[in-house]
Amino acid sequence: MSLPLLEQLIEAFRVLPGVGQKTAQRMAYHVLEREREGGQKLAEVLAKAIERIGHCEQCRDFSETEICAVCANGSRERQQLCAVESPADRLAIETATGFRGVYFVLQGRLSPLDGIGPRELGLDQLEARLKQGEVNELIIATSATVEGEATAHYLAQMARSYKVRPSRLAQGLPLGGELEYVDRGTLSHAFGTRTEVQE
Amino acid sequence: MSLPLLEQLIEAFRVLPGVGQKTAQRMAYHVLEREREGGQKLAEVLAKAIERIGHCEQCRDFSETEICAVCANGSRERQQLCAVESPADRLAIETATGFRGVYFVLQGRLSPLDGIGPRELGLDQLEARLKQGEVNELIIATSATVEGEATAHYLAQMARSYKVRPSRLAQGLPLGGELEYVDRGTLSHAFGTRTEVQE
Repeated sequence: MSLPLLEQLIEAFRVLPGVGQKTAQRMAYHVLEREREGGQKLAEVLAKAIERIGHCEQCRDFSETEICAVCANGSRERQQLCAVESPADRLAIETATGFRGVYFVLQGRLSPLDGIGPRELGLDQLEARLKQGEVNELIIATSATVEGEATAHYLAQMARSYKVRPSRLAQGLPLGGELEYVDRGTLSHAFGTRTEVQE
Repeated sequence: MSLPLLEQLIEAFRVLPGVGQKTAQRMAYHVLEREREGGQKLAEVLAKAIERIGHCEQCRDFSETEICAVCANGSRERQQLCAVESPADRLAIETATGFRGVYFVLQGRLSPLDGIGPRELGLDQLEARLKQGEVNELIIATSATVEGEATAHYLAQMARSYKVRPSRLAQGLPLGGELEYVDRGTLSHAFGTRTEVQE
């Protein structure tokens, strides 16, 4: 009743995040009906990307080359090192802020129950870098979740042991956020850490 | 600052329906971080599907073979022919109903402004089939939009000219639908075409 290859294609689309049976089916039909050329291109680029994209030796971000473009850029300030959980976080910071330092991509966060310890996050590599003495500030941009906080705590201790100043992104109300819709934890934290209004 | 290949991959994902910049980015990162094997498989199957999946000569549905499995199935009743707009619609009917007839997939609906006329929908092929005299009911399952209705009207006239009985899916309130949330057009139509309650 059904096409094996079409079914295989629908199944294959389900590896994508947030794609269930229904969406996968829509994708398969859409590509076959209207986007054969684009689909062909996607298949090629995807295979090539998986084959060629590895990790930067210095910052562990995705890179086609041994050293990524940011790390290879001589004009970035090596004294400021920003630790992020994922390449997407790195990109978000790079796009939103004017940060001119360099990054270290953990590719995860400490989660002993899932078997993710310091080794998995490349913290030995990070430690070696802090030891060199080039870095003077470690900006810890892990997420504000329990595991992210635990990771931040670990990193901050490591930084201090090498006389590197650790810092953490400010927490509080999001800009443009309505008080009414902010979650209780954030509101309580923002209330407790209120800052004096300057004249 | 950015990886050409990674950017290409993000761009390539955007051919998928409902996928914008942000989702494409999430897909690319997800595949590279956690689903390299699944991504590889997707690339292969996608390329193969685009290369091999064509249309069934009889019903115009997607098929790897000249005649699709439904059309080739000798136990389906050829007197009932169900015209649908797309392969997804065919699949929906096949899954939800116990229909044992055969299909004809229009791959679109009449839309003269977009250059989609009877030829593009393969109506000459459908006409030849009605002419043969094997079909006695044409179930018109086009969507309830303006273009779908126009297509249905056209098909019904064609069917009548070959003494084939045209039928159309019933319209009214969806099962389990709350009256309050049904759109005005549907409610008005359902009210006007109310049926007598049988004892």
